[in-house]
Amino acid sequence: MVTTKEKNSMETFEKHESQVRSYSRSFPKMFNKAKGHKIWDTDGKEYIDFFAGAGALNYGHNDDKMKEKIVEYIMEDGISHSLDMGTVVRAKFLEKFSEVILKPRKLDYKVMFPGPTGTNTVESALKIARKVTGRTNIISFTNAFHGMTLGSLSVTGNSFNRDGAGVPLNNTVPMPYETFMDDDNSLDFLKSYLSDTGSGLDLPAAIILETVQGEGGINAASFEWLQEIEKLCRRYDMLLIVDDVQAGCGRTGTFFSFEPAGVKPDIVCLSKSIGGYGLPMAITLIKPEHDIWEPGEHNGTFRGNNMAIVAATEALTYWENDKLANSIQEKSKVIKTRFEKIVKDYPELNATTRGRGFMRGIACGEGKEDYAGKICEKAFEKGLIIETAGPSGEVVKFLGPLTIDNEGLNKGLDILEEAIEEVLNN
Amino acid sequence: MVTTKEKNSMETFEKHESQVRSYSRSFPKMFNKAKGHKIWDTDGKEYIDFFAGAGALNYGHNDDKMKEKIVEYIMEDGISHSLDMGTVVRAKFLEKFSEVILKPRKLDYKVMFPGPTGTNTVESALKIARKVTGRTNIISFTNAFHGMTLGSLSVTGNSFNRDGAGVPLNNTVPMPYETFMDDDNSLDFLKSYLSDTGSGLDLPAAIILETVQGEGGINAASFEWLQEIEKLCRRYDMLLIVDDVQAGCGRTGTFFSFEPAGVKPDIVCLSKSIGGYGLPMAITLIKPEHDIWEPGEHNGTFRGNNMAIVAATEALTYWENDKLANSIQEKSKVIKTRFEKIVKDYPELNATTRGRGFMRGIACGEGKEDYAGKICEKAFEKGLIIETAGPSGEVVKFLGPLTIDNEGLNKGLDILEEAIEEVLNN
Amino acid sequence: MVTTKEKNSMETFEKHESQVRSYSRSFPKMFNKAKGHKIWDTDGKEYIDFFAGAGALNYGHNDDKMKEKIVEYIMEDGISHSLDMGTVVRAKFLEKFSEVILKPRKLDYKVMFPGPTGTNTVESALKIARKVTGRTNIISFTNAFHGMTLGSLSVTGNSFNRDGAGVPLNNTVPMPYETFMDDDNSLDFLKSYLSDTGSGLDLPAAIILETVQGEGGINAASFEWLQEIEKLCRRYDMLLIVDDVQAGCGRTGTFFSFEPAGVKPDIVCLSKSIGGYGLPMAITLIKPEHDIWEPGEHNGTFRGNNMAIVAATEALTYWENDKLANSIQEKSKVIKTRFEKIVKDYPELNATTRGRGFMRGIACGEGKEDYAGKICEKAFEKGLIIETAGPSGEVVKFLGPLTIDNEGLNKGLDILEEAIEEVLNN
Amino acid sequence: MVTTKEKNSMETFEKHESQVRSYSRSFPKMFNKAKGHKIWDTDGKEYIDFFAGAGALNYGHNDDKMKEKIVEYIMEDGISHSLDMGTVVRAKFLEKFSEVILKPRKLDYKVMFPGPTGTNTVESALKIARKVTGRTNIISFTNAFHGMTLGSLSVTGNSFNRDGAGVPLNNTVPMPYETFMDDDNSLDFLKSYLSDTGSGLDLPAAIILETVQGEGGINAASFEWLQEIEKLCRRYDMLLIVDDVQAGCGRTGTFFSFEPAGVKPDIVCLSKSIGGYGLPMAITLIKPEHDIWEPGEHNGTFRGNNMAIVAATEALTYWENDKLANSIQEKSKVIKTRFEKIVKDYPELNATTRGRGFMRGIACGEGKEDYAGKICEKAFEKGLIIETAGPSGEVVKFLGPLTIDNEGLNKGLDILEEAIEEVLNN
Repeated sequence: MVTTKEKNSMETFEKHESQVRSYSRSFPKMFNKAKGHKIWDTDGKEYIDFFAGAGALNYGHNDDKMKEKIVEYIMEDGISHSLDMGTVVRAKFLEKFSEVILKPRKLDYKVMFPGPTGTNTVESALKIARKVTGRTNIISFTNAFHGMTLGSLSVTGNSFNRDGAGVPLNNTVPMPYETFMDDDNSLDFLKSYLSDTGSGLDLPAAIILETVQGEGGINAASFEWLQEIEKLCRRYDMLLIVDDVQAGCGRTGTFFSFEPAGVKPDIVCLSKSIGGYGLPMAITLIKPEHDIWEPGEHNGTFRGNNMAIVAATEALTYWENDKLANSIQEKSKVIKTRFEKIVKDYPELNATTRGRGFMRGIACGEGKEDYAGKICEKAFEKGLIIETAGPSGEVVKFLGPLTIDNEGLNKGLDILEEAIEEVLNN
Repeated sequence: MVTTKEKNSMETFEKHESQVRSYSRSFPKMFNKAKGHKIWDTDGKEYIDFFAGAGALNYGHNDDKMKEKIVEYIMEDGISHSLDMGTVVRAKFLEKFSEVILKPRKLDYKVMFPGPTGTNTVESALKIARKVTGRTNIISFTNAFHGMTLGSLSVTGNSFNRDGAGVPLNNTVPMPYETFMDDDNSLDFLKSYLSDTGSGLDLPAAIILETVQGEGGINAASFEWLQEIEKLCRRYDMLLIVDDVQAGCGRTGTFFSFEPAGVKPDIVCLSKSIGGYGLPMAITLIKPEHDIWEPGEHNGTFRGNNMAIVAATEALTYWENDKLANSIQEKSKVIKTRFEKIVKDYPELNATTRGRGFMRGIACGEGKEDYAGKICEKAFEKGLIIETAGPSGEVVKFLGPLTIDNEGLNKGLDILEEAIEEVLNN
Repeated sequence: MVTTKEKNSMETFEKHESQVRSYSRSFPKMFNKAKGHKIWDTDGKEYIDFFAGAGALNYGHNDDKMKEKIVEYIMEDGISHSLDMGTVVRAKFLEKFSEVILKPRKLDYKVMFPGPTGTNTVESALKIARKVTGRTNIISFTNAFHGMTLGSLSVTGNSFNRDGAGVPLNNTVPMPYETFMDDDNSLDFLKSYLSDTGSGLDLPAAIILETVQGEGGINAASFEWLQEIEKLCRRYDMLLIVDDVQAGCGRTGTFFSFEPAGVKPDIVCLSKSIGGYGLPMAITLIKPEHDIWEPGEHNGTFRGNNMAIVAATEALTYWENDKLANSIQEKSKVIKTRFEKIVKDYPELNATTRGRGFMRGIACGEGKEDYAGKICEKAFEKGLIIETAGPSGEVVKFLGPLTIDNEGLNKGLDILEEAIEEVLNN
Repeated sequence: MVTTKEKNSMETFEKHESQVRSYSRSFPKMFNKAKGHKIWDTDGKEYIDFFAGAGALNYGHNDDKMKEKIVEYIMEDGISHSLDMGTVVRAKFLEKFSEVILKPRKLDYKVMFPGPTGTNTVESALKIARKVTGRTNIISFTNAFHGMTLGSLSVTGNSFNRDGAGVPLNNTVPMPYETFMDDDNSLDFLKSYLSDTGSGLDLPAAIILETVQGEGGINAASFEWLQEIEKLCRRYDMLLIVDDVQAGCGRTGTFFSFEPAGVKPDIVCLSKSIGGYGLPMAITLIKPEHDIWEPGEHNGTFRGNNMAIVAATEALTYWENDKLANSIQEKSKVIKTRFEKIVKDYPELNATTRGRGFMRGIACGEGKEDYAGKICEKAFEKGLIIETAGPSGEVVKFLGPLTIDNEGLNKGLDILEEAIEEVLNN
């Protein structure tokens, strides 16, 4: 039960929590309960969630099947924490992941538990790529986001976050993402840097990329571009690392975001929705020939978060048939169509729409960048949780749960459009 | 129910998991259930747990009170994942932590949620220390262990793990821990480095330390040493960071390991047992005057692991009175006495005993370093889970749950002694 | 007198000198005497010098006036070595440099003696730029060459030399030089990197560039490009460092290579021909407002190489009127015309010509890169010293002395053309 | 002839030279002429030189034999500048160096010309050590001085100079020099760091050291200490680099400073007095088995400063018999005895004396550090050029020319003592 005190306790955060806190500022309400695509504040107000835990809740809040499994596991005193010891549920996850995800896609990866967060999997990927190649440099891309620990931060583009490091971020070089320049010649550029031995680009251990950049502004790479990048990796013996932490687990319509491009990364980073229920979990997929780790060379206390693993195993059930995938495809069209209409109907925004699948953005144009933030703020007032992205926060970013029903989706889109209209009318 | 297939499925890990896996090698059994200080494999064999999730299970496995709270929260569809939005349970935790832990100890810290693992809190601590001081260098200590991501790894001593980085680890310098040299003059040494402007030691942003080094071999610093380190921090405007990830949450007998030394760190890192139930959670405590973060300057998807927060809040109940603290103190004596007797009774080990509170080690002497591993292996056969530590794995490391009863403690110690005897008799 | 033994003593280098030796391999003869644009081997064979000490001998070998001044100074027991104490000749140099070079060009620089080599001045420039701005990153350009010590090497493009560092080269990022890509959008590219706060380019302390890249393949930047770079420096408070070590001292037709572009660098690096007689000397020019060095913050034993300073002072006499400058301009046209004719007359080379003033290259086209080396080898046989440049050694590089007479110039050009013809006929 | 204007032109430096200038501040007179151990200012005042170009003038100013050879070479139009082409004089130097220096000492080194300054040879040494071992880390020592370019600076102790870098100095770790702590256990310390795999010291490519630290305060290592360091290098496959830039070329009584210790460094750095006449020159000596450079992997414009090479060759004549060596030994005793007497006679200085051979210091004790500077200032007034050293400038540093006669030596020592007396009487 939520008491009056609790309802009013936003000041608790002001008083006790560090200045670094962020989302309690963007969405300044006290929340307590959630289900599917809905979330409620302590006043009982309902919100449609187009944010989905920044992509950690692809299956919505508190999925009933997973919930059942978790509670059952807890009630039976299943081992909660076990580092990376052999537990029945960990074995089950490995087998089901192999059966449901890897085999049908003809992918052969070893699964590493690198610690339960996105940055853990990215750091492990950078390490193994450097170990395999004996090189130190890593190519990342403009506007990439890979995490906040020192290794991941060094491949992240955002200058505000980079400055937070307090030390120079090194052994990496940012190359232009496909969408970086209006007149795209990013590939020619990268090829020149790699082929010219006087370019000053030290031959890299790996290229790390997101197929769709989330934080960077919902920038979607074309399949051709991804294929060309893969070819460059093969030509220069660089490993291809796909950070599918946000774009993976169905977010773009297929389990892995790179499937339709037909590329086969050497290393894949998964986190966020891999845990199914929003519980911390991450895995790193490594081609067997690159799995040259020594036992324990990378480790971590929370590699065996069994409760998350139980939910993760159940979540894989969504991928045993095409139902979810098809539904994402279908609804993606709805979102895309609606966003395109909005862009057309509100020319004052000077906006464009971007993205793929359930990662879709409305990018407010030059001089209108701050409208995105205003729209999200207004949407929140009206019962919709949605966030901005992009270097100037200029993109309204749709990241709704994949399991949202048509009613919820349309209602959310309606609220969004109303918010736009109201902002423009002011 | 565990099937025969599950019982025999250790090969699952061999087949699907990366070579980097570690504990499924040291303890090659399939586990499924645990309670308090006990854990069972799928053959039904019971083990006493003197390892406690490497310090993540100070309150034992599956504590009933926390279990109840977690299940209740899940059943009510409490928000599972919320980034760092305002949730009722997060507010409750902050308030209880302030009331039960900080206020009685006259400590005034802002609480940061840096992501749910030990390495997340360490990375956040290094960042804020560098930001506050404008300096880049960090002093760490020989045989320190702070984590596996690039920033934390750079302050970790272990060369095997450091080599895993694949890049030079920089902006840090390892100074001698109090126990590093037989003839301790570590403080004179550090003072000389700091006072001599020609020493080549760039003035550091911070000193980071564990009051008792766990992975490094159960090396316990004296209170005098800690006080002198604090003084040096004050003299040279360096921040004092105590990494209490393993030694905190009661492990040494008080909630914070530094309490009896009377020092007041500028930053404290907590993880492992802060989540109570073995669920991923970490917090960084920052003196208000150093809390100069910009909103969102450091962030992370799993900052709001509410299930862990619910358990963490309940776990604080243990600290509302002195019962647990007193019990740790008492049982610590039992362990120390028994370890000292073992050292004396088995002179062939040429061993010494080390540590503080529930961190206690038997360090096998020169030429006998590999006995520690053999002893742990033998103990496992006999139903005791215990691990080694130290640069050469020469220390048998006791890390039992703080809530263990006398019977369990004594039974475990008996098994350990039997294992020693058997190893020595071979 | 040269003995027979000396004539044959190339094996001395094989026997006693390190494998790192280079020019005794490209020009495998023993030399002893030189004058103006001529150099003789110990067999008495005469060579025309189109290499000029890699640009250190702009005034030719052993200029008579400088020779007289040096000998006079030595004979009078002028102080040979004086660190940076006050010597009469150092004062004279400073005054004459101010009068003859700075004032007429309306430039106001403080002169720093950073040690006597090109890499010393570059390292000092990077230091002061970082000190002035408080930033660590430096933008360099593809195919740049700035020196072999760790700081200079980090802004040098050549991968072969970079690899020699044995450590990752950091705190720098190579941006595309104007000539890097066929379809030049290097400026758009750089602008995007600087303006997009998510690009991953940490805001730099400085941009360092050569107006004409020598080692990189005689790539000449346009004046417009240099002006735009300067504007970017002003917009983002980055310092503009022109490394005029090779392109300065008249090499391109004006004393400073950047004069005709109308830019005013914050820092200018001079070495090579500043010493006039081929003696080690370097200076760093710093705008007074950036001259915030502490006394002795950068130092060096050979800052006061007075013999070089005496020659350097005399060399400035060449700039007291327009005679030399005009002559360079004129002869530059001769060279350019001849090179263009060669390119046209030998289409098999698929070559282009590049450069400015007395830095002029014939770049052999794709698939013909190794012809450049063969041409230089053949030219050497025929009595011409000339070297290749460029990432694949694909450019025949003219760097003749500025004081060469028409006869010498034409004779050298004739030999070069003959060498080309012979190489192509084989 | 020196004009009145020149006499008064110290303001030239103020006006035109960078703030970084140093020795024109310590010795604020205009100098013009020098011979042997004497130097004259433009007022005709004579100074005895106990500084000798910071060790670059071991053979005194303007040695007549070298002078003759240089002038002869210039007059014959010997090649002044030739990069590292084969010149007769370079071959002669290599042969004589082998005959006179290496063979009699049973040393077998390849000679590298790394560029003409101390920092060039140090940078080349660090590169080749890293290349040979494939490791990145370098052990340097407290209070070491190796140069001002980024690589050399990273192994230099002085914090004032290090801060000048503007970037963190990395891939190096400063270990305690023998004289660093009163209670010397520097070797135990270093051994512990190397043997303990958890120490956090990454196994280094090399140890770089000065046998007597000049700038660091005239700290002389014992032969036993050097031998133990060499053993550690062998045990851990680290290269031993002796930076003999200041302590070599006879400064301590033997040509190489490490001879009496019986160690055989893998790499030796020579500069300063190797050029004999104070002209810029440096060589790096490399054991043949480590000479794995690729041609041109390290290069530089002023590798072939032939005028310096001519003088250097003549300078080696001093080592064809024992005369100079014996004289240094003898006079070293005079200096030592006199310094010891001074220390005893002026107890107010609370001083000690340190050093070896012609590197000898009077270290003013705690609380009296600034007396050293005052003494040098007073000595200068009285006609003696002498400098301070040490992290707090607390050491009066004798670095007189090796060729000084008894009269000059005694006169200088008398002036020094008078200066001390006068400073103490004020």
